[in-house]
Amino acid sequence: MDLHGGNIYKYSEKITDYSANINPLGVPKGFKKLLKKEMNNLVNYPEPNYNSLKEAIKKEFVVPLENIIVGNGATELIFLFIKAINPKKTLILAPTFAEYTRALESIDSEIHYFPYTESNNEFLLDIEKLKVELDKNYELVIICNPNNPTGSFLAPDFFVELLAHTSAHNTKLLVDEAFIDFMKDYKNLSVLNLKNDRIFITRAFTKFFAIPGIRAGYGFCFDKNILEKISKIKEPWSLNSFASITGNLFEEKSYIKKTYKWLDEEKVCFIKKLNKISGITVFKTNTNFILIKLHKISGSKLKGKLINFGFLIRQAKNFEFLDDSYIRIAIKDKSSNKKFVKALEKAIGN
Amino acid sequence: MDLHGGNIYKYSEKITDYSANINPLGVPKGFKKLLKKEMNNLVNYPEPNYNSLKEAIKKEFVVPLENIIVGNGATELIFLFIKAINPKKTLILAPTFAEYTRALESIDSEIHYFPYTESNNEFLLDIEKLKVELDKNYELVIICNPNNPTGSFLAPDFFVELLAHTSAHNTKLLVDEAFIDFMKDYKNLSVLNLKNDRIFITRAFTKFFAIPGIRAGYGFCFDKNILEKISKIKEPWSLNSFASITGNLFEEKSYIKKTYKWLDEEKVCFIKKLNKISGITVFKTNTNFILIKLHKISGSKLKGKLINFGFLIRQAKNFEFLDDSYIRIAIKDKSSNKKFVKALEKAIGN
Repeated sequence: MDLHGGNIYKYSEKITDYSANINPLGVPKGFKKLLKKEMNNLVNYPEPNYNSLKEAIKKEFVVPLENIIVGNGATELIFLFIKAINPKKTLILAPTFAEYTRALESIDSEIHYFPYTESNNEFLLDIEKLKVELDKNYELVIICNPNNPTGSFLAPDFFVELLAHTSAHNTKLLVDEAFIDFMKDYKNLSVLNLKNDRIFITRAFTKFFAIPGIRAGYGFCFDKNILEKISKIKEPWSLNSFASITGNLFEEKSYIKKTYKWLDEEKVCFIKKLNKISGITVFKTNTNFILIKLHKISGSKLKGKLINFGFLIRQAKNFEFLDDSYIRIAIKDKSSNKKFVKALEKAIGN
Repeated sequence: MDLHGGNIYKYSEKITDYSANINPLGVPKGFKKLLKKEMNNLVNYPEPNYNSLKEAIKKEFVVPLENIIVGNGATELIFLFIKAINPKKTLILAPTFAEYTRALESIDSEIHYFPYTESNNEFLLDIEKLKVELDKNYELVIICNPNNPTGSFLAPDFFVELLAHTSAHNTKLLVDEAFIDFMKDYKNLSVLNLKNDRIFITRAFTKFFAIPGIRAGYGFCFDKNILEKISKIKEPWSLNSFASITGNLFEEKSYIKKTYKWLDEEKVCFIKKLNKISGITVFKTNTNFILIKLHKISGSKLKGKLINFGFLIRQAKNFEFLDDSYIRIAIKDKSSNKKFVKALEKAIGN
């Protein structure tokens, strides 16, 4: 079984991919032009230190240049940060993205999982219980926010409380905001506003700008020692030439506007339709994908049936605390979503 | 000062870059078409495990799939291998590429350098002396072959001798063949033919196919334990979509032929002209760049003068055992080389 979504390569070309959470508007046209232009620059090494990209991030988020770090996808930054702080014992809020575990296993960190609580149609966090757990000397806590695959979101207040509670242990926080830009008000909702030296933040251009093929991520770090350690272990030229010009994506204002318009409308509409299907629980989401619990059919069986209808979904059984009754689907364009709902109804057998 | 060549970004656009060792024929036209086509696939994640690329490498070099590894440039593979075997004590044949040292420093390996011997116009290796050194319990020996920046090359026989001598210590070998494809007969000259489980080989598409902007490298490993360790610590999707289609480069037969024709002719011609300039030693080379020793002017001073004439060269003073009297230059097209020779003559003041 696949560890991640998005493996469309083993299916026919006609498959519609609901397993990867990519903006259905596709690569912004203006940026595509820049990519074509960049094709003439491939004979040169990418710009050392990627200063143009960092300058664009600095301008967009008003953060000093020295606190910005860029990577070959957010994944490189997650691995680098974990190697840099080399935590003996780590707590991961779960179910969540599997790569945190892989990165921690590569440095032999002791890993514990703290579960979100499933409550009707949402995943909540029992903060008091979490506080008790955090008193057990964790060096690192990892939180994906909004969380993949639950779609749940923790507001800045929670992080303030968490930082206060863990200050005695000097616990570090890795906050993966790979999907936060799908929240229109994300600049106000991000932990970046805390500018705290115990929080390392990762983000990606991947999902919002529909460029998983390019591999470009960025992050923020306010701890000088960690930044120094990372610069010591970081490989040179880890971003390719195309990734080095992703700073231009922030200028795609009309694409960004169109994306929020699509998501505002389609999220409500799609969930409404899904909720009419009996035998499933549709979880609340703060981003561009939806976790679903199946009551009549297993995820494995449903996946096979939907492949025959031309749709690829993401089984969620390899996420910690989830089993084969959960699946994750992307929110796509209106027309695809309509067809998907019909196929899902048929496949479940209503 | 720059750690590597190729930083053209701080100069005007009119500079001719002799500091980076890239094939002057540019990106192969057929491959450029494939890149443009791939632009429509950026909304998908790259193929997991990069099987098409690995299949192309398997076909080209007749090596089992499980012994092939691909990376975000050869650099990722060098870092991965060094992390995987985590050597306590390493010997590097030097002067050479600086990233081996950086990778070793990131894991706190003890690093020693064994010098090539400068002899008239070439760099040789004192094998008997090396053998004595190798009896001092090294876990890893790193050899760039052909070597950057000396241009010297060690034939397969040397490696057979080296393997035999170090078998008691079970010393591992990292052989970086990033420039070997500039030798027409490289398939016969590579240590790949030894298929030895103590040799890890890295290569790149970067230089020969003029695509440093894409970041694509590959390697060969015949040790199952090391391969397993690497797959445990490797980041997912480290190659971007464009890098994932570089296997098609092996089909660029006419580009490959043209490259050998250019290099055969131009290497002889360029070196002949350079040798007429008094006050410099031009070292023999087995690849597409040339190390030069300056007797009348420092590398720093010459670099400044040549910038004014529109040429960027690579100072070699930050290579182990070299000082500011050495520079490295690429072999480029006939017309540029002619202009470069004139500029060099002027700058040296003949």
